[in-house]
Amino acid sequence: MHTPTTLQSHIAGRWHGQQAHQPLHSALDNGLIYHTHAEPIDFAEALHYARKTGIRSLMQLDFQQRAQRLKALALYLMERKEELYEISHLTGATRPDSWVDVEGGIGTLFAYASMGGRELPSSNVLHEGPAMALGKRGGFAGTHILVPRGGVAVHINAFNFPIWGLLEKFAPSFLAAMPCIAKPATATSYLTHTVVKMMMDSSLLPEGALQLVIGGTGDLLDRLTGFDAVTFTGSADTAVKLRSNANLLREGVPFTAEADSLNAAILAPDVTPDDPEFDLFVKEVAREMTGKAGQKCTAIRRVIVPRQHVEAVGQRLRERLAKIVVGNPKMDGVRMGALASMDQHRDVSERVERLARGNEILFGARDGFNPVGAGGGGGAYFSPTLLLCRDAMRNDAVHDIEAFGPVSTLMPYDGIDEALELAARGRGSLVTTLVTRDPAIAAHAVPVAAASHGRVHILEREAAVDSTGHGSPLPQLKHGGPGRAGGGEELGGIRAVKHFLQRAAVQGSPTMLAAVTGEYVRGGAVKESDIHPFRRHFEDLQVGHSLLTHRRTVSEADIVNFGGVSGDYFYMHFDEIAAKDTQFGKRIAHGYFVLSAAAGLFVSPAPGPVLANYGLDNLRFVAPVAIGDTIRARLTCKRKVDRNRTDEAGRGQGVVAWDVQVTNQHEELVASYDILTLVLKHA
Amino acid sequence: MHTPTTLQSHIAGRWHGQQAHQPLHSALDNGLIYHTHAEPIDFAEALHYARKTGIRSLMQLDFQQRAQRLKALALYLMERKEELYEISHLTGATRPDSWVDVEGGIGTLFAYASMGGRELPSSNVLHEGPAMALGKRGGFAGTHILVPRGGVAVHINAFNFPIWGLLEKFAPSFLAAMPCIAKPATATSYLTHTVVKMMMDSSLLPEGALQLVIGGTGDLLDRLTGFDAVTFTGSADTAVKLRSNANLLREGVPFTAEADSLNAAILAPDVTPDDPEFDLFVKEVAREMTGKAGQKCTAIRRVIVPRQHVEAVGQRLRERLAKIVVGNPKMDGVRMGALASMDQHRDVSERVERLARGNEILFGARDGFNPVGAGGGGGAYFSPTLLLCRDAMRNDAVHDIEAFGPVSTLMPYDGIDEALELAARGRGSLVTTLVTRDPAIAAHAVPVAAASHGRVHILEREAAVDSTGHGSPLPQLKHGGPGRAGGGEELGGIRAVKHFLQRAAVQGSPTMLAAVTGEYVRGGAVKESDIHPFRRHFEDLQVGHSLLTHRRTVSEADIVNFGGVSGDYFYMHFDEIAAKDTQFGKRIAHGYFVLSAAAGLFVSPAPGPVLANYGLDNLRFVAPVAIGDTIRARLTCKRKVDRNRTDEAGRGQGVVAWDVQVTNQHEELVASYDILTLVLKHA
Repeated sequence: MHTPTTLQSHIAGRWHGQQAHQPLHSALDNGLIYHTHAEPIDFAEALHYARKTGIRSLMQLDFQQRAQRLKALALYLMERKEELYEISHLTGATRPDSWVDVEGGIGTLFAYASMGGRELPSSNVLHEGPAMALGKRGGFAGTHILVPRGGVAVHINAFNFPIWGLLEKFAPSFLAAMPCIAKPATATSYLTHTVVKMMMDSSLLPEGALQLVIGGTGDLLDRLTGFDAVTFTGSADTAVKLRSNANLLREGVPFTAEADSLNAAILAPDVTPDDPEFDLFVKEVAREMTGKAGQKCTAIRRVIVPRQHVEAVGQRLRERLAKIVVGNPKMDGVRMGALASMDQHRDVSERVERLARGNEILFGARDGFNPVGAGGGGGAYFSPTLLLCRDAMRNDAVHDIEAFGPVSTLMPYDGIDEALELAARGRGSLVTTLVTRDPAIAAHAVPVAAASHGRVHILEREAAVDSTGHGSPLPQLKHGGPGRAGGGEELGGIRAVKHFLQRAAVQGSPTMLAAVTGEYVRGGAVKESDIHPFRRHFEDLQVGHSLLTHRRTVSEADIVNFGGVSGDYFYMHFDEIAAKDTQFGKRIAHGYFVLSAAAGLFVSPAPGPVLANYGLDNLRFVAPVAIGDTIRARLTCKRKVDRNRTDEAGRGQGVVAWDVQVTNQHEELVASYDILTLVLKHA
Repeated sequence: MHTPTTLQSHIAGRWHGQQAHQPLHSALDNGLIYHTHAEPIDFAEALHYARKTGIRSLMQLDFQQRAQRLKALALYLMERKEELYEISHLTGATRPDSWVDVEGGIGTLFAYASMGGRELPSSNVLHEGPAMALGKRGGFAGTHILVPRGGVAVHINAFNFPIWGLLEKFAPSFLAAMPCIAKPATATSYLTHTVVKMMMDSSLLPEGALQLVIGGTGDLLDRLTGFDAVTFTGSADTAVKLRSNANLLREGVPFTAEADSLNAAILAPDVTPDDPEFDLFVKEVAREMTGKAGQKCTAIRRVIVPRQHVEAVGQRLRERLAKIVVGNPKMDGVRMGALASMDQHRDVSERVERLARGNEILFGARDGFNPVGAGGGGGAYFSPTLLLCRDAMRNDAVHDIEAFGPVSTLMPYDGIDEALELAARGRGSLVTTLVTRDPAIAAHAVPVAAASHGRVHILEREAAVDSTGHGSPLPQLKHGGPGRAGGGEELGGIRAVKHFLQRAAVQGSPTMLAAVTGEYVRGGAVKESDIHPFRRHFEDLQVGHSLLTHRRTVSEADIVNFGGVSGDYFYMHFDEIAAKDTQFGKRIAHGYFVLSAAAGLFVSPAPGPVLANYGLDNLRFVAPVAIGDTIRARLTCKRKVDRNRTDEAGRGQGVVAWDVQVTNQHEELVASYDILTLVLKHA
């Protein structure tokens, strides 16, 4: 049904390769569907192009603008998703399997567009403050910035998620202004090829931001420097091989690995077979065994249950697995498709054989296994297979041999600490699920499990209504586990962008730090504004524009009136007798009065470009304000972020944070905070 | 003057080694002062002891308690610092050189004690929030925690800072509950030995928290797992060698390197020989060439100046270097001591010879160099040496060969971008100094320099009064640069502690996340308090204790009165005409009124255990409050931190953060924030 075509790499701005080389086969019938190309890639040229053209074009945009490109790209791909689903079937995936890859991947672009818009500046310097004083005379301060590394990101991916695997790495490195060279696993590279072709056709990518390698990486790794970065998803063995590359070691190239691991699910001792949690556990295990035919780095490989429930769990799992229809994923009713290739089939079979030594096979109809709609055979179908290991504390194989298919081992434990010990025997895993109803068990078990797992998923009836499941990495949460799981960190919100940036400490005068970070730093030069800064439009406002207000003497009447309006009659403000015994020795004004009076001092009452004060951060009441004290405020434009947004009326606006310092008649700071406003642009 | 004694390792709780092995010599006269021990170390035993005894005893304390131990240890060492200074002279160090090592090291303990006390919880789970909803029905949320890794930290150090090098690594890993095996460079291991002996004698260290290796690391690295961590400070070559260890690669052991690098100082084009900045530049370069006889990872190796000023800089540097008296650091007037050993002397001499090929030597009286008080010779004294490279863009050696002594190369540039390119030719450095008066130059140059440097120090007259200098890593700021500098991150405040912890994402119901993190998570179960939570002492208060207040209907009179008290007559509250044109379409109450009224709703007026509301975080005005709306507040105990502190009156107290949600009559959230209080313990 497919005329075999030759996949092309995209290198230095051109599609590259004509001659057929390695054949790629459909998972469904082993039919020949594509070839890789035979022509070698000039990786020196690819890197030169990325370093010159790619970095320049990426750096012409700022963080906010790159976030907007990601969003546009996500929208573009979402409109074309059906084409991706269609090709995805060839990998053996069902529609739900493909959803994770296709829409999970595109959703990751959306998520990074949105997090980038919310959390990154409209420049290419990310200030990781706060700045701190480093001397007594106010002349010297320090802070941290994160800047683009000026290098290239090489993303090497596994065969199981050809789209998500690309996009979840591409999104944060793109935000970080790193041109990316993507190398998908050859077996399913045709799907990555399709999505990369769409991205290229969209014209939304800056020139040189993405290159695609079909086939091997040649001498690519030997040409990288410490300013580049390599990420890898795949087997632990390959991770070690790549990480051992002499050039990567010599140059100290950052290398992030996310490797297959033997993830566990633990049924806690509090759950009985009558609890809904028992069913949740069985369901989650069956789902994570068979989803994507078990070809997920996060799949549940070890099913750890209280010894007294091992038969019951085994029984219910068998029942559930028996109902899962395996076959051609395009057919109605099919719940599990094929492995990605016959190579995988051989590999999984061999590993199941090793796992079965000394253990029982509870489920796994290898004889009589008859996938639906498999046609003339040749498809890489594999039966769900459940093993039972009765003494997992003394068995290494079940904690070490990963059969990358629909294969799990059930194992009993005695006591929750033994369960945790068994889980840790995986020597570092991506994720574990703990099913319990008891918060005390979670409080004890999760921090222990967290030492050897990148993610811990706690499941019970309350969480089940919304749970995204054991197997799903989310853009907001860290993906990657310690030890065998590779030791890397991916995703986890803006953390992932920071992994692709270079952090530097910066020291200097507050004025210099403000110039570098784009944020006002206390003690630095301010620009006394000839007009009230609240009357300036976004474009006219500069970081450092400042207003020193008139003064106000705080009287007893203020305290009385503020108590009346707020209803706050706390003894420190109203009880002369009790107030004598406080650290202040007398009545003081309400903190919120000081805050409100400061607003009264700096407010500009008539309509103007400042639309709303929507929030306040880092408020500290530094010193008390007593009756008779005279306060004033200094309001300084601290930070501007242009999100290129408009309001409902179509008016452009930006976010402006203001530094506020309230001082008393001795020039002592009494209150300190930031206020957040939306400020109009010129019409 | 010293009877040679045999240094002992401290392994598995015992001092180990009697027989003399490798001789160690004084830098001052090459006299024999110590031996390493001959007996091999059983690293399997050392690791077993660390894993069993060390981790258990460290985990019996929480973050706050470990911070207190650090402080006690710092005080103990500070009382004994003179003994350390005395021995430090033998390394060739002057008193100011030793100050960096001795008091800089102890100061780092103080700093981590203080930062730990301020920023870490009184438990062993560090919540890196905020928790975020992951579903629409409120049943599922996610967050991150950091927990002790359950492994061992191996700290391998350089010869130049035998005390600081140990303590700056020990402090954060100790806070992270990692037992530490310290391996100082053999040449100056006698000084590390002295400080470790003090630490052992103090009885302040939990059992197994620290072991000391004198001599080689044997098979130590071959025995580590992915839960352990290795840090290394030293040469780039050794970093590569260690990083290439097959076991470290196979197990994915985190490896942090901080390697020597060719740090630069750049004189910006705006500075003229008449500016004070010109002198600041010359002074900084001379200081960072000769401090510690140039044996600092951060020393200035490359002096990058505008071509038109190269003669002037060279002249002033020569004058300055000529005044620096080199000799026995115990003698009055001596400004620069000896290199650490004759081995170093040979190494530096050989590298200077290579650097001198094709370059001029501007200073470096190798003939006639006569160190003061050097006695009968044999000391490792080396003259300050300044080279000039006129075409540094076409010279690789000056950017690559590091002579680890008082040796720098002056090089001219044309245009600031060329200066930055020259600095980047170091292929990753720890630090660069930029001397400029022009914030615009800093704003342009620092982000560029930051891509290839771990720290950028901006120097001019304003900063000079307080500057801690080019060469000083500070506990608050990141230390470590990309590429050749090793790619590692050390220090940088609590970041360094996090590097030694394992981060895990946690997903589950808000109630479960609260149990795991020890912090209330919105949507989770609350404990309606039968008594007002503000009337509970610290010990009696539980996370989740909550109060739902009575209600209050907001009237026009409230707005009027609040305007009168605050002086805030913003049109949104007071101008019916203009308010019609806002997104709300009508007048709304002041945000600060809502905040103040909420306090009025939940305040408990009589004296009680809540001492003060000292701050407020993350305030967001989520929805407007209009005339006629009825608000109420939910106040929930969010987080407790026991710093084991008392106030001036000797009363124990803890920090309590409260979650506040203000809602309207439709149960919609209108304002959301955290308030921070101090709460008394029982007397």
